[in-house]
Amino acid sequence: MPITINHLAEGINTVWVLLCAALVFFMEGGFAALEAGFIRSKNSLNIIMKVFADCTVGMLGYWAFGFAIMYGLDKAGLFGTSGAFITGNFAHLNLKIPIYAYWIFQAAFAVAVATIVSGAVAERMKFGPYMVFSLLATAVIYPVAGHWVWNPAGWLAKLGMMDFAGSAAVHAVGGWASLAAVLVLGPRKGKYNKDGSLNVLPAHNLPLAALGAFMLWFGWFGFNPGSSLSGLDLNIARIAVTTNLAAAAGGTVSALYTMWKYGKPDASMIINGSLAGLVAVTAGCAYVAPGSAVAIGGIAGILVVLAVQFFDWVKADDPVGAIAVHGVCGTFGALAVGIFAEKGGLIYTGSFKLLGIQALGVGAVSLWAFLATAAIFYVLKVTVGIRVTVEDELDGMDLCEHGIAAYAGIEASHVRAFAHLAEGIDKSSTKEDLVSSR
Amino acid sequence: MPITINHLAEGINTVWVLLCAALVFFMEGGFAALEAGFIRSKNSLNIIMKVFADCTVGMLGYWAFGFAIMYGLDKAGLFGTSGAFITGNFAHLNLKIPIYAYWIFQAAFAVAVATIVSGAVAERMKFGPYMVFSLLATAVIYPVAGHWVWNPAGWLAKLGMMDFAGSAAVHAVGGWASLAAVLVLGPRKGKYNKDGSLNVLPAHNLPLAALGAFMLWFGWFGFNPGSSLSGLDLNIARIAVTTNLAAAAGGTVSALYTMWKYGKPDASMIINGSLAGLVAVTAGCAYVAPGSAVAIGGIAGILVVLAVQFFDWVKADDPVGAIAVHGVCGTFGALAVGIFAEKGGLIYTGSFKLLGIQALGVGAVSLWAFLATAAIFYVLKVTVGIRVTVEDELDGMDLCEHGIAAYAGIEASHVRAFAHLAEGIDKSSTKEDLVSSR
Amino acid sequence: MPITINHLAEGINTVWVLLCAALVFFMEGGFAALEAGFIRSKNSLNIIMKVFADCTVGMLGYWAFGFAIMYGLDKAGLFGTSGAFITGNFAHLNLKIPIYAYWIFQAAFAVAVATIVSGAVAERMKFGPYMVFSLLATAVIYPVAGHWVWNPAGWLAKLGMMDFAGSAAVHAVGGWASLAAVLVLGPRKGKYNKDGSLNVLPAHNLPLAALGAFMLWFGWFGFNPGSSLSGLDLNIARIAVTTNLAAAAGGTVSALYTMWKYGKPDASMIINGSLAGLVAVTAGCAYVAPGSAVAIGGIAGILVVLAVQFFDWVKADDPVGAIAVHGVCGTFGALAVGIFAEKGGLIYTGSFKLLGIQALGVGAVSLWAFLATAAIFYVLKVTVGIRVTVEDELDGMDLCEHGIAAYAGIEASHVRAFAHLAEGIDKSSTKEDLVSSR
Repeated sequence: MPITINHLAEGINTVWVLLCAALVFFMEGGFAALEAGFIRSKNSLNIIMKVFADCTVGMLGYWAFGFAIMYGLDKAGLFGTSGAFITGNFAHLNLKIPIYAYWIFQAAFAVAVATIVSGAVAERMKFGPYMVFSLLATAVIYPVAGHWVWNPAGWLAKLGMMDFAGSAAVHAVGGWASLAAVLVLGPRKGKYNKDGSLNVLPAHNLPLAALGAFMLWFGWFGFNPGSSLSGLDLNIARIAVTTNLAAAAGGTVSALYTMWKYGKPDASMIINGSLAGLVAVTAGCAYVAPGSAVAIGGIAGILVVLAVQFFDWVKADDPVGAIAVHGVCGTFGALAVGIFAEKGGLIYTGSFKLLGIQALGVGAVSLWAFLATAAIFYVLKVTVGIRVTVEDELDGMDLCEHGIAAYAGIEASHVRAFAHLAEGIDKSSTKEDLVSSR
Repeated sequence: MPITINHLAEGINTVWVLLCAALVFFMEGGFAALEAGFIRSKNSLNIIMKVFADCTVGMLGYWAFGFAIMYGLDKAGLFGTSGAFITGNFAHLNLKIPIYAYWIFQAAFAVAVATIVSGAVAERMKFGPYMVFSLLATAVIYPVAGHWVWNPAGWLAKLGMMDFAGSAAVHAVGGWASLAAVLVLGPRKGKYNKDGSLNVLPAHNLPLAALGAFMLWFGWFGFNPGSSLSGLDLNIARIAVTTNLAAAAGGTVSALYTMWKYGKPDASMIINGSLAGLVAVTAGCAYVAPGSAVAIGGIAGILVVLAVQFFDWVKADDPVGAIAVHGVCGTFGALAVGIFAEKGGLIYTGSFKLLGIQALGVGAVSLWAFLATAAIFYVLKVTVGIRVTVEDELDGMDLCEHGIAAYAGIEASHVRAFAHLAEGIDKSSTKEDLVSSR
Repeated sequence: MPITINHLAEGINTVWVLLCAALVFFMEGGFAALEAGFIRSKNSLNIIMKVFADCTVGMLGYWAFGFAIMYGLDKAGLFGTSGAFITGNFAHLNLKIPIYAYWIFQAAFAVAVATIVSGAVAERMKFGPYMVFSLLATAVIYPVAGHWVWNPAGWLAKLGMMDFAGSAAVHAVGGWASLAAVLVLGPRKGKYNKDGSLNVLPAHNLPLAALGAFMLWFGWFGFNPGSSLSGLDLNIARIAVTTNLAAAAGGTVSALYTMWKYGKPDASMIINGSLAGLVAVTAGCAYVAPGSAVAIGGIAGILVVLAVQFFDWVKADDPVGAIAVHGVCGTFGALAVGIFAEKGGLIYTGSFKLLGIQALGVGAVSLWAFLATAAIFYVLKVTVGIRVTVEDELDGMDLCEHGIAAYAGIEASHVRAFAHLAEGIDKSSTKEDLVSSR
């Protein structure tokens, strides 16, 4: 059978979407590293296991019901009613790729929403209830919001909301769900003092967190350009550029701002500033010019710093800054489309119409995510309980939840190494050399 | 010269296979992180160096001879006889991509087989003999098995064995080679007590191991869908879905099973459960429905837990669970095709024929891998020796083999950091804050 | 509108280049991990923040001016004069992909040049001046060299210099810029003793460094084959093969050479040997046969060991070996094209003409990079200062520059873990078990 032009086109699009899906999935590893690195070592394994829960339990939830609610045949613009287990008719989606390619790309997004919350509830939430939440996040919370914005029949889609890769549908949803979760859960023991001051609970492994950020940034090459769903949409090239410039601007501004404000460039803020730029440009990456992307990323780079401080001020304890990065900058990113979009944006048209739609849209999905998450967390709290005991929290989640420590024996090896060096096994560097070098 | 349809098709296929090859190669980094994280820090650099040996010495071995034995002109269905150094005629392979694209994809697979064994022999095997084994694994052991299954003229291929991406040819081969290696090598000092009990030799860096698992999962987006060798085979989309659902099911079941059995979700088992699902679906990813993939992955998620316990019970000391993950679940995955395949599977046809072929096939390649590896390890043992001295083993492989420690000074930096904080360099967090936060 | 053959071709090429750009960008994470792992923990966060500076400040610099200088309309073969902020006419580049796809791929290269230098100046250079250098490296130093070699109107391009993916334009430029930087900056305190001997300042996390090397190797699947800029250029398959074989040969030879010379395979040298092979084959990957790639990589695997020793001998203190890997092996790689190229190489033609052009070319860009960097570092030194105080250097850059430690509390968690195990929380492994296992 001869190969047709249409077959080639579908092949290109499928290759593109599958490889972008792989990149988006890899962001789970990035989230795991980022979140684990930002918290204390005694809880670092537990948070990674929660990310595994998203990738496993959560992915099954999106397979069973989430995708159907999000992309099934529409009911009143609110949710889908067909397509459980990726079966049935999806002709209404007008896809140019196999439904399975679409599913795997979307599944990687769904899993990411749950994972955003995992960071905010770190260091105190029980594993079992988290599994339940992860399942509901991918099976219900995210799919309903996604239906509104991305199902062709969703009520926000019909209003003309523009959220290309999900500043609102993914990041604001994950970020404001995080706020709800944190408010129901309460802050970590020892975080806030009675006199109103707060304690820094130090990041145990910032190189690991930074590595996670690089993985996330890398994954965004799939997240944003891949949302075109087509390798023949040559705008994917400009999307890659706007995405990267926003990240660059976010990190640059966070560095300069913290240098100016505190005298030193703050490492956590540089990391989160880059991510904030990525989150903020995610809605508009396909709609704004490169220069606008720099503006969006740069604003996000300051917003994230202020937001981290704000949520600490109101004692919404978010160990990794998920609410600031995803909630605040995702919301800003959705609004920024109304300002910077080449078609419909305030700057280009002088009209507030699109900005209004964007505000309504991001407000609606954020409110839904907040309320749904608050309800789930509240029910879990009053039934099975969502928080480990104070004693367990002090001992660390890794021990109480998994019976093991994330790290065992690193310094034992180190001490032995030095002892041996001192005994002369390696003549090239004596103990004194090593000591003098410190 | 105008571009033709055939040129476009070959371009798509080549782009697809090269990028998938990159993903598969990246699994070496994943294996290195997984294995290093699962063992003690004093041996962690050594195991990573062994993975480097696979990628360097092993890759050269596959270039020189392995590829020829695997894909050269057939001799009696048993091995290839042409094509050393990627030269000569490969028309019998009927490729739709350049031979070099095929080679790099296959080379990444060959290297992975050797690396599976590196985990099982961790913490006690000498580096030099490992290099020799790595060379022979990629130049002979794997290529012979691969010839049987994947060379169009191989005796198992002709029988109709179905092993899409290598549950048998790659994972069972690597896993049962690991068992042979471990039996010849013997367990680590201090692992098994005289009274029959065993000691947990603790994983030194579980976040690193988990990061490795994410890298492996990510790489599987290339491993399985890429085995189509064609971006125009739109089944690649469903392959991506079956692959991911099996991983999700494996991790979910391992988590639930260990929660039920031991009261806590076991972190190592969740990691290995996800990998077990991936290994098990590798043979059938192109042949089974998504629901069957969930079943296959879920079964593998329990099998891997039982298998880890079994091999400890028989004192086959495998520090990372390679035999359980790759040997047992690879074998199961090959058999599962005979049960779940939409074309020929027991469930769909009621016929045991395919299952029988699969059993014969995976049995044959496993036996070959076991015997060949046992022979190589035995010869190495009685000639150059394969095991470091007891003293060196207690001191750690990093010191005795490389003269250096994997980690130097992490806690020294830490102590200094705290000392400074106490002296008030960073006014925002005093020593007391930090202490109180622990 | 029906899809045309040309549209399909541009789609394939764009998909290819964007995904390769993602791989090249991911090398920044690899550099960060490699460099952080190779140095002491007290400076590890700071070096990662410098890589962030490259990705953020540096990327903006390449956007604003660098790309224009490199690929804008030519002035006298020396630099570009149009195209700031990716605007204007780029028809002279004869691209078959969107200009934005070209830009993002090139931007990832530009950022890498700056990052090479970040490793060499580790553990002593101030962050602020580094930001300035990073901006100038991506906005001026690299673009001028790149213009000479890769702008169709550049003077070296017109001479016929062959540097496919940049052994000269990227690696030699980065490597010799590193030498200039190191000479102006001076060695780390405690590195060289008055009696001429030197101290090993130990790598604090070799698993992290190795992970970085795997990320870099993975990224090279984009760096070299992606430089074709076309997924329809089927030579990309052979480029992937030559690239990987050179890496394999480099690592193999470094391992064997250090085993022969020092009795033990040196882990840092195996890592750097693989990278040296990759750097060296980068110029010739599209022009040389696989066997030649093995030769090039193998030679680089020895060169890098000798070069590391040489630069220590002359007290050019380069904590990560950037000058050896990128400067020496990049230069060698450019020359190797003159020897091994199938078209024009000394071996094939008997003519020294190409070798002469390559020598002139790599010499010119190296000299430019060295002088420009020396000038910038000198001006920064006499104005704002480029080096932290001795006290800060002893305390570590993470504290003095960022007010935080890279690692906090790893061993605290560990100690607590052991304490709990001893108290019997986990009955399966007692303290004695754990102790006996060490």
